[in-house]
Amino acid sequence: MEPGMEWIKIAPWDISCEGAEEETRDYRESVFSQGNGYLGMRGYRPDEASPNQAHRTTFYSGFYEYIRPGITDLVNQPDCSYTEIRLCGKPASELRVTKAKQSLSMKTGEASWQYMLEDGEGRKTQVEAFRFASMDNRRLVALRYRITPLNYEGTLELITGVDGGVENLPISDNQMQGNTEFVKFWTEHAFLPRTDGGVLSAKTRYSKRETAAGWCVCASGAATQQTPYAQGETYATTLTASLKQGQTWQVDKLCAVACWRDGEDPAPQAARLLNENEADYDALLKNNAVVWESIWRTADIRLDASDELQGAVRYNIYQLIASAPHGDEHASIGARGLMHGRYKGCYFWDTEVFMLPFFRDTLPDTAKSLLMYRYNTLNDAIESARRFSVKGARYSWMSSDTGFEQCETWDTGCCEIHITADIAYAVGKYALLSGDKAFMDEFGARILVETARYWFDRFSYCAPEDRYHLLFVKGPDEYCGVTSDNLYTVRLSKHNIALALQTLERLKKEQPGRYEALVQAAALLPEEQANWRDLLEKTVERFDEGRNLWVQDATFEQLEPLDIPGVRDTCKPLYYTLNFDRLQRYRVLKQPDVLMLMALLPEEFSQAEIESAWDYYEPITLHDSTLSFGMHALVAARLNKQAEAQGYFEKALYMDLKDVMQNTAREGIHTAALGAAWQALVYGYCGLSADPGAPCCTPRLPEFIRSAAFTVFRDGIWYDVTVNREGSCTVSKIQNSNPNSVFLRGV
Amino acid sequence: MEPGMEWIKIAPWDISCEGAEEETRDYRESVFSQGNGYLGMRGYRPDEASPNQAHRTTFYSGFYEYIRPGITDLVNQPDCSYTEIRLCGKPASELRVTKAKQSLSMKTGEASWQYMLEDGEGRKTQVEAFRFASMDNRRLVALRYRITPLNYEGTLELITGVDGGVENLPISDNQMQGNTEFVKFWTEHAFLPRTDGGVLSAKTRYSKRETAAGWCVCASGAATQQTPYAQGETYATTLTASLKQGQTWQVDKLCAVACWRDGEDPAPQAARLLNENEADYDALLKNNAVVWESIWRTADIRLDASDELQGAVRYNIYQLIASAPHGDEHASIGARGLMHGRYKGCYFWDTEVFMLPFFRDTLPDTAKSLLMYRYNTLNDAIESARRFSVKGARYSWMSSDTGFEQCETWDTGCCEIHITADIAYAVGKYALLSGDKAFMDEFGARILVETARYWFDRFSYCAPEDRYHLLFVKGPDEYCGVTSDNLYTVRLSKHNIALALQTLERLKKEQPGRYEALVQAAALLPEEQANWRDLLEKTVERFDEGRNLWVQDATFEQLEPLDIPGVRDTCKPLYYTLNFDRLQRYRVLKQPDVLMLMALLPEEFSQAEIESAWDYYEPITLHDSTLSFGMHALVAARLNKQAEAQGYFEKALYMDLKDVMQNTAREGIHTAALGAAWQALVYGYCGLSADPGAPCCTPRLPEFIRSAAFTVFRDGIWYDVTVNREGSCTVSKIQNSNPNSVFLRGV
Repeated sequence: MEPGMEWIKIAPWDISCEGAEEETRDYRESVFSQGNGYLGMRGYRPDEASPNQAHRTTFYSGFYEYIRPGITDLVNQPDCSYTEIRLCGKPASELRVTKAKQSLSMKTGEASWQYMLEDGEGRKTQVEAFRFASMDNRRLVALRYRITPLNYEGTLELITGVDGGVENLPISDNQMQGNTEFVKFWTEHAFLPRTDGGVLSAKTRYSKRETAAGWCVCASGAATQQTPYAQGETYATTLTASLKQGQTWQVDKLCAVACWRDGEDPAPQAARLLNENEADYDALLKNNAVVWESIWRTADIRLDASDELQGAVRYNIYQLIASAPHGDEHASIGARGLMHGRYKGCYFWDTEVFMLPFFRDTLPDTAKSLLMYRYNTLNDAIESARRFSVKGARYSWMSSDTGFEQCETWDTGCCEIHITADIAYAVGKYALLSGDKAFMDEFGARILVETARYWFDRFSYCAPEDRYHLLFVKGPDEYCGVTSDNLYTVRLSKHNIALALQTLERLKKEQPGRYEALVQAAALLPEEQANWRDLLEKTVERFDEGRNLWVQDATFEQLEPLDIPGVRDTCKPLYYTLNFDRLQRYRVLKQPDVLMLMALLPEEFSQAEIESAWDYYEPITLHDSTLSFGMHALVAARLNKQAEAQGYFEKALYMDLKDVMQNTAREGIHTAALGAAWQALVYGYCGLSADPGAPCCTPRLPEFIRSAAFTVFRDGIWYDVTVNREGSCTVSKIQNSNPNSVFLRGV
Repeated sequence: MEPGMEWIKIAPWDISCEGAEEETRDYRESVFSQGNGYLGMRGYRPDEASPNQAHRTTFYSGFYEYIRPGITDLVNQPDCSYTEIRLCGKPASELRVTKAKQSLSMKTGEASWQYMLEDGEGRKTQVEAFRFASMDNRRLVALRYRITPLNYEGTLELITGVDGGVENLPISDNQMQGNTEFVKFWTEHAFLPRTDGGVLSAKTRYSKRETAAGWCVCASGAATQQTPYAQGETYATTLTASLKQGQTWQVDKLCAVACWRDGEDPAPQAARLLNENEADYDALLKNNAVVWESIWRTADIRLDASDELQGAVRYNIYQLIASAPHGDEHASIGARGLMHGRYKGCYFWDTEVFMLPFFRDTLPDTAKSLLMYRYNTLNDAIESARRFSVKGARYSWMSSDTGFEQCETWDTGCCEIHITADIAYAVGKYALLSGDKAFMDEFGARILVETARYWFDRFSYCAPEDRYHLLFVKGPDEYCGVTSDNLYTVRLSKHNIALALQTLERLKKEQPGRYEALVQAAALLPEEQANWRDLLEKTVERFDEGRNLWVQDATFEQLEPLDIPGVRDTCKPLYYTLNFDRLQRYRVLKQPDVLMLMALLPEEFSQAEIESAWDYYEPITLHDSTLSFGMHALVAARLNKQAEAQGYFEKALYMDLKDVMQNTAREGIHTAALGAAWQALVYGYCGLSADPGAPCCTPRLPEFIRSAAFTVFRDGIWYDVTVNREGSCTVSKIQNSNPNSVFLRGV
């Protein structure tokens, strides 16, 4: 596939493609990924054989296990989609597949596969498969098979159950390193059969974390059913039917999953779910659709634009929702969601800075639970700070079920410290815009105080200069080397400290009791707030008056210029061509740094400063991170640079649907890019401002978007907003108290 | 043991100690290590049982094997000292050991152990063991046992042979990480018996690198001897004797080793060595002593000082010689020699900067072979540079049998790049002082050109400043963080470039043919030398006129001061208390950086500048590296700061003999400290200048050294030099053409 290829057909509410070639398989499986936030499955056809036991993945949010001391991997769960088809005694895997199509509905999350099987004797069989992860009950997955012998009659078998022999293939942080070591986590398999299926449970090797996956089936017509059996670690039911030519055999399968994280014994829980529900695909799909409707009521953006654009926007929103652990306050969203094992399934600043705005404005309960993950790992961040011999709370660059550092490349894990301020920024913005003061007072304030304390200790006071330097850091531009006084990190950390001071001041005035409790809990010393205020005045920031230019860091202007076209001619990141150590001495950016700061804190810069920064940094930014395009689109739209905005917006929006970085196949869905595209559209093109109170927009819609309608949550109230190319903006309050209530019932 | 304890008795030509307690075992085994440069053995008593198969180590110079892709460990070789004693049927390991003593002779490298064995029935047996690695034939090790039943008569057995079941316990670079993973390298054991012993051969698991170790025995009196047998991977001979009370049984054992690196089939080679020699300990020892005499003729320093000081100086020299791969141009000296597996047996700048001056001035053939190791890995350094996307040759921070990077901690392996200039410095000084122009012209010049080319590309030219910055480096002070324009690295790299330019100029004039060949071989472009000259003029070096102070690097003066007594009260390095990331923001040094530069290039600084640097840096240097003391002693002696010089000299000199850093037990002999102590004595106290021609000294001997006599090689000639406290210096040429000739015969 070529970058920018137009291969996936994008309709307003679904995507589809034709073909089932081996060389597009990984790509299709990435793009057609499905999930409901509790679990995510790659878009593999349930009955297609896998090259190895780590190829098909089903991940549960927050379910990690150790692969080394202190280092976890997101665990590949027993595969409840496991299915095999046999036609007249022959495994379908030995037959030719033709006329293959697959699709994914964003409206309901349902995937479908259609294909024809042909054997050597000319027998043709039509197969249709359907699958979704229920949003009504997020521990349920439903599958349906419809099989029709087109030009013969014969005996068909469908073998379906749970494959408990799945493995992990942990992926190194270092993108240059191959992954070759399979890890088998699952041990102590136990099987509880039912007449129409069964429940398999297993435990992870080290931490004995338990999982359970059960299934039951319901077949149409005169099918016979064998007692479920085990083959190795695969447990399955064999269904057999003798079919006439043209007769369609329909088999519905209900899967119920559960794990130790649910707080109950997993196996009985899965068994109970099977008892309480029936393998009736239509009924399950209907219940699921009702919940999705309640989600889309606030999450959707309705565009007067091309079908492709409309569909792509919904696809991005669907994938964000599919990977978000709604209501689970001990998990977050991985850099590849629940859709790929890249980055060991870890959480980065991607969540708070790139994805959270979408949830904050449209599904605020999910936004709150994402921030609660940070509150719940605050003690880990305090312990991490202690291990780094620094005070306060230091959030890790990569975290998983604990807040402890999962990043194994020293320079990033040690030096890319801005994540702590990014989290504080998200806490502040969430509380400000949602109006959720209760969250701020009870949880957010403590995060702000501990992180402000961290920053004060992390800066180095230089007495001769009477200045605080931020030494040995890396900003968002990871090509910058370990440097000092990175403007992004300095400004965000000051924002963090200022938020802490404001919050303490407000609490002191409005809730003196709570203020005292916080001071006591954090053992806040009298001089600390004075110290913080001192730091706010005395950081080192480089501004070149002559060029009206904010300079990225202490060494940036000492770097050598690079002849960019001379060293790259593909979309492949430059670190495939040049060593990181060399790259860091060129004056090029991997992704925006000063512009990123201006995207987050636009109120701190004049339009002219942002324009100077754009003119200086944009031409030397390589966009070697998928985090880059959406933020450039946002800033370009705000600057009304229409051509640039369009170029960047399309790259962010179609990141995976058009394989912009040529890595969707081997890395999965880029969740930060999904969120960044959403921000570019809503905060860039539609010009929504990030202020409390009723939404206010300054639309700058491009030619290809005539109008956009979306829903925004502000200060406890939902608003429907419509903007158009003419620059008008209509805002109307939604009277219904909570349009997400049907969704929230099940969370 | 306490630091600075006086527990090892140090005599002018030997060291000894009493006791055989378990808690001092590792320490004794480190201090009493023996070697001949081909092999090194820790000072374990041959008949003492080991807690695990990696505890006793025998290392061969340059014999590595992979433990991970690209990463090697020095291989623990089959243990040819393996011995067990049985008295009246009882293993000696079950009996009580009393009156234990052990000693090591620096004159001959012979170790001895004396102890008494007592059983429950009051039977007392005197045991004496002797061992040395022959310097006459460096593939031979000889052992002698003398066993006397003191108050009984009975049957004694001595079981002796080769243990081929030894393992490695690779040690992580990260000193905070434990080592728990035993690696068994040896496979494909094969045994060739002889009537009085045999030859065991084995191959390493991955690279199939072969080793062989054979033995034969000769016993006094009426001993019977069993045919050699195998028990697991241990091959041994059992000798039995019935002894009367007071009768001494003497058993001599000759071991012969060989390996793939010798260029012959190892097993036949070991067998041949056994055939050509006899298990006659006295004769072997005599031959060995003759060679040592030839070494000591130039290596010794004769002091009019305390016996302890004299012995310690000789001990340091002995250990340097014991680990140096004399004549082997494909190996160097590890940071713990052949005496411990710390740092995976790798080679650092320790060799060129700390140890090489000793060899250069006293055993120049060994110095040349050490530099040839760098020449022979030049292509690896060129390939390493290519992998770092930089031109020329980049030597690795840690290397082993190849020149590829063995350092697994990113910041050091990537940023502590001064090693490349250190090697060039050593090449230049060796050629200048030894007068070995042939080496320089044929090998050194190519090293200088490729490394100069590296430096030019490694610097970053900043056009607005018209300056070359050296960005993202760490100097010798590893507590400094990743910073810029480290003075040590900038000045040493300029020295490197200047050496290359001088050498090219000289060749062009003196040997135009060779000059052309070099230009062609290195594909040297016409502009390169002009570029190098431009760089020499335009680097960034920080000098504070007001304080007459050379500043370490770009960030040093921004670092926070640290209340040193407040955070440490032991000799334990501070990184055990504070995280590295925190340490790098304190204005403290792990080891000298600017002072190190002034130790190497004293001619580039005024006395006043060196004094300012001492006053500024010395009080904030933590000496958390064993490389620190000797260099401080050298600079202090040159500054005639007698009290400080003494303090530092004693710490360097007695590093292992008095366990100054409390890590000799678990880390082995600190080879760089040995060399630094020698430099402090010869270049500091004795005031030898590093100039070509007849040696010239400005003695500054302390009170405790009345005179010192040593030998120096300059410009192809050996000189005997005597200096005394009165400041006089006598220099006399040695007429004998090569005082090392007996030694060199066997190399």
